Amino acid sequence: MKTVTMKRCTAGSTEGSAQAAAHGPPPPPARPILLIGLMGAGKSAIGKRLAARLGLGFHDADAEIEQAAGMTVAEIFARLGEAAFRDGERRVIARLLAGPPMVIAAGGGAFMDAATRAVARRHATTIWLRVPLPILVRRVSGREGRPLLAGKDPAAVLSRLSQLRNPIYAEADIIVDCTDEPADGTTSRVQAALAQHTPPQRVPVELDARRYEVLIGPGLIGRAGAHAASLLRGRRAVLVADRTVAGLCLPALRQGLAETGFECIEAIVPAGEASKSLPALEQVLRAALSGGIDRRTAVFGIGGGVVGDLAGFAAAVLLRGLDFVQVPTTLLAQVDSSVGGKTGINMPEGKNLVGAFHQPKLVLADTLVLASLPRRELAAGYAEIFKAGLIGDPALARWCEANAPRLLAADPATLAEAVAAAVAFKAAVVAADEFERDPEGGRALLNLGHTFAHAFEAEFAFDGTLLHGEAVALGLCLAFALSARLGLCSEGVAAWVQAHIAAAGLPATLAFLPRPVSAARLIGHMRKDKKVRDGRMVFILARGIGQAFVATDVEEQAVRALLLDEGCTD
Amino acid sequence: MKTVTMKRCTAGSTEGSAQAAAHGPPPPPARPILLIGLMGAGKSAIGKRLAARLGLGFHDADAEIEQAAGMTVAEIFARLGEAAFRDGERRVIARLLAGPPMVIAAGGGAFMDAATRAVARRHATTIWLRVPLPILVRRVSGREGRPLLAGKDPAAVLSRLSQLRNPIYAEADIIVDCTDEPADGTTSRVQAALAQHTPPQRVPVELDARRYEVLIGPGLIGRAGAHAASLLRGRRAVLVADRTVAGLCLPALRQGLAETGFECIEAIVPAGEASKSLPALEQVLRAALSGGIDRRTAVFGIGGGVVGDLAGFAAAVLLRGLDFVQVPTTLLAQVDSSVGGKTGINMPEGKNLVGAFHQPKLVLADTLVLASLPRRELAAGYAEIFKAGLIGDPALARWCEANAPRLLAADPATLAEAVAAAVAFKAAVVAADEFERDPEGGRALLNLGHTFAHAFEAEFAFDGTLLHGEAVALGLCLAFALSARLGLCSEGVAAWVQAHIAAAGLPATLAFLPRPVSAARLIGHMRKDKKVRDGRMVFILARGIGQAFVATDVEEQAVRALLLDEGCTD
Repeated sequence: MKTVTMKRCTAGSTEGSAQAAAHGPPPPPARPILLIGLMGAGKSAIGKRLAARLGLGFHDADAEIEQAAGMTVAEIFARLGEAAFRDGERRVIARLLAGPPMVIAAGGGAFMDAATRAVARRHATTIWLRVPLPILVRRVSGREGRPLLAGKDPAAVLSRLSQLRNPIYAEADIIVDCTDEPADGTTSRVQAALAQHTPPQRVPVELDARRYEVLIGPGLIGRAGAHAASLLRGRRAVLVADRTVAGLCLPALRQGLAETGFECIEAIVPAGEASKSLPALEQVLRAALSGGIDRRTAVFGIGGGVVGDLAGFAAAVLLRGLDFVQVPTTLLAQVDSSVGGKTGINMPEGKNLVGAFHQPKLVLADTLVLASLPRRELAAGYAEIFKAGLIGDPALARWCEANAPRLLAADPATLAEAVAAAVAFKAAVVAADEFERDPEGGRALLNLGHTFAHAFEAEFAFDGTLLHGEAVALGLCLAFALSARLGLCSEGVAAWVQAHIAAAGLPATLAFLPRPVSAARLIGHMRKDKKVRDGRMVFILARGIGQAFVATDVEEQAVRALLLDEGCTD
Repeated sequence: MKTVTMKRCTAGSTEGSAQAAAHGPPPPPARPILLIGLMGAGKSAIGKRLAARLGLGFHDADAEIEQAAGMTVAEIFARLGEAAFRDGERRVIARLLAGPPMVIAAGGGAFMDAATRAVARRHATTIWLRVPLPILVRRVSGREGRPLLAGKDPAAVLSRLSQLRNPIYAEADIIVDCTDEPADGTTSRVQAALAQHTPPQRVPVELDARRYEVLIGPGLIGRAGAHAASLLRGRRAVLVADRTVAGLCLPALRQGLAETGFECIEAIVPAGEASKSLPALEQVLRAALSGGIDRRTAVFGIGGGVVGDLAGFAAAVLLRGLDFVQVPTTLLAQVDSSVGGKTGINMPEGKNLVGAFHQPKLVLADTLVLASLPRRELAAGYAEIFKAGLIGDPALARWCEANAPRLLAADPATLAEAVAAAVAFKAAVVAADEFERDPEGGRALLNLGHTFAHAFEAEFAFDGTLLHGEAVALGLCLAFALSARLGLCSEGVAAWVQAHIAAAGLPATLAFLPRPVSAARLIGHMRKDKKVRDGRMVFILARGIGQAFVATDVEEQAVRALLLDEGCTD
């Protein structure tokens, strides 16, 4: 397994961190700035002023093309046709964006070109100057040199162009709504938007043809279309959510998709684990099919693990596989189920027995939604982050020790950093063992603490006594206690794990449970666990922090003795 | 797309064709013959006689090992241990099998080694001499030099060994049941079995890591375990069938799997298209789960297209993906749904709307079951074979012209040859376009005749008026008639297609239909077809026999004119 260090996890965040603004004036932009918008939006006027204020050069793409061609834009259109102009425009913008930071005003149609958009995404910060139609009409009326207007009614042309282009302009990194104020005022607002802009962290999950990125940052849901459009085959989406999340987050998602021209079908299921079921799947499938989908439609799952698993499975089987975008809204879902491609439902015979491996095209982990989570749920999600450190990332475990209080106080930057680290860790594990085939390590290691956790969950029959993350926290303590008892790691290490979990307000001893539990019953649950191989219980144990391994040779007697020592009844 | 000629399609059938026996004495075996079975089965005694009769050399693997080691088998066991002996045995047998045809008697334990079995599958014809236990006990009692018996009760040892080994011996190509008769008699029966033995034709579907083979031949169902065991992860199976096929074919499949030690769970659904549904899927999933499955369990689907699609989809989603073995029992299923990995169910919103691409590990196309098909169903399946020729295999189309009468009379060798040719054709198409992404050709070409066929099926609401293959036959005629009308192919070619289809007793004109059909209604159905792209109907047309292509520019008026000329009402 690759080693994932905190350094690597947060490498993507150096540019434009949310905290940077607090430490003084923002540094000059590291990437070129590309201004886009309809004719008359003021791209050149604002661009020149912005460049001057930032101390950067300014280039007008149309002027560059005219210079290269030795003709005006109108002449190029007339003599060579629009296709030839677009071709030159694409090459000029690509050349400018490959250079040092500068401000570039693009022609109104430049961003319609998919290749230009792709280059802009990679190399520039794109700003759409969004101007109300009546203002645009007033500005361009009577002016010469705009070939698309030649001899036509400006209002009609601009109305048609805005319908066509606005959904594409909306893929810009930043949208600034402009009024009829003087250019200096708009320039100030563009500058402010640029300073406030935090590009999301991007953690890749390297699965060859199924490679995708987890985007982490504030406000991603409201810009979902901008982030997803280039990765999907069409602009039609099925949105799956439960009733609770639908009320809280669906308006923003709807809006974020609508601005880039997505048409949406919605499938809302009841909140809770009961929706991870065949009847709920049928409901989602039929809502999607009767809403009208084709092979280019994408499924968005917004919510916690239940909705993620359900929506992902629906995407896997609708028309034999639609694109899937995951929008996890709990800390647990952001760090756990967002990576790995496991989708599925429960059956009366057991949990997760029917499903598919179906990797998303994109994961949007919006850290803004974490702020509103109850502290108990935040802590439960944190248990999985700490688990990642304990399995194979000692630097992450140390970071947890230093940062847990800030994280549990829902500090946005700390949350984003933790999510990125945990996602990067799990991404490396999954990339090495996509289909959980490695019996000696790989994805199996992610079950650290889970043999115990599943036994507690079975004992309390998912009655709300324990959140999954809480069961995992208790399981982590017991896995290290068992490791120490078997002489695999020191007592000190086990004690450190337990103390950290207790400090996070998570269950660190069996005293957390509402009633005494029988060791025999817990071991009975463990024997029924899916991880049992040829009749032997499988534990993930550790030789130290970040040194987990798969153990199939643990004597039942040692487990029983541990449970009794920890306070279980016989 | 690769060109698939009849030469290539039938290349695998030169050896041991079912017809060969009719043309004189069998040729000497082309591959080494490996005799296997428990100690005392008579491998050496029979082997020597068989070799003499066939004019081949004889080798006793144990004797070769003793010679190489300079010790008796008993001494190797005593001094070096069993592992060292098995190691030598594996190497000796691999060396012998790499040589010219000969008869080899293997030690009793040799075939237990997976590597030895793999070499034997590739290079030898393996014959298991199956002898009742009491006879074996009598034969070995009191003899020396059998290390596994040393100082033990032969009956107990042989009983234990047979339990352990018989399911593995049963993977042999041929099983000969032996009695206490003289060795010459048994040798004659072995020789007869060898002469009668027809190894199945093997058509590979080249999908890289998902590569699999379609086996075609008589009696494959009764040897299902022997063919499948080496490809599957365990010896546990879920058998999915409908009630009709269960009565006819399940006993043989059960027996074929049981002899190689498979434990089976059965899921029997009602016969008919209604079983390609979510409720039937749920029934299969729950039968599998409550029967006790793990990740090494395989799903076998035995029956026509409905059960194949249902069972394949169940396999795709059980525990996020189990191995799948397809046992198609109709001609249509053998040549059509057995290649391509499309699985799925219908929804109230339409057919095949939910499913997965899930390639089988193996397809067993048992040509014996085709003999009992009604002639109408045989002809319907034949339409898809002829279609393959029309799309891209002129040699197959010519073969059809010459052989259709024999095929429709259910001649076994002709059926096997046709199935192999059609499967090879479809395999080449699917290998080039596994996920149906090629808009210009690839899998889309397999829809030749289907735009018309689906319209007829929709018009008659799957009421039994038309079998799918019959609708396709009529669609093929119309696709060529339309191609001729558009000047793409000659009238003569279209007439030839129509005449051949009529001669096969398939519907070649609209006169076959029980009532007049409205052209407007048919075009209405075509406009709702899944193949419609951006509002345009998609037709597969042809520039000649074997020259099909995707056409998206067909004017509705041309289709309407054709339908009216063919006798549709307005």
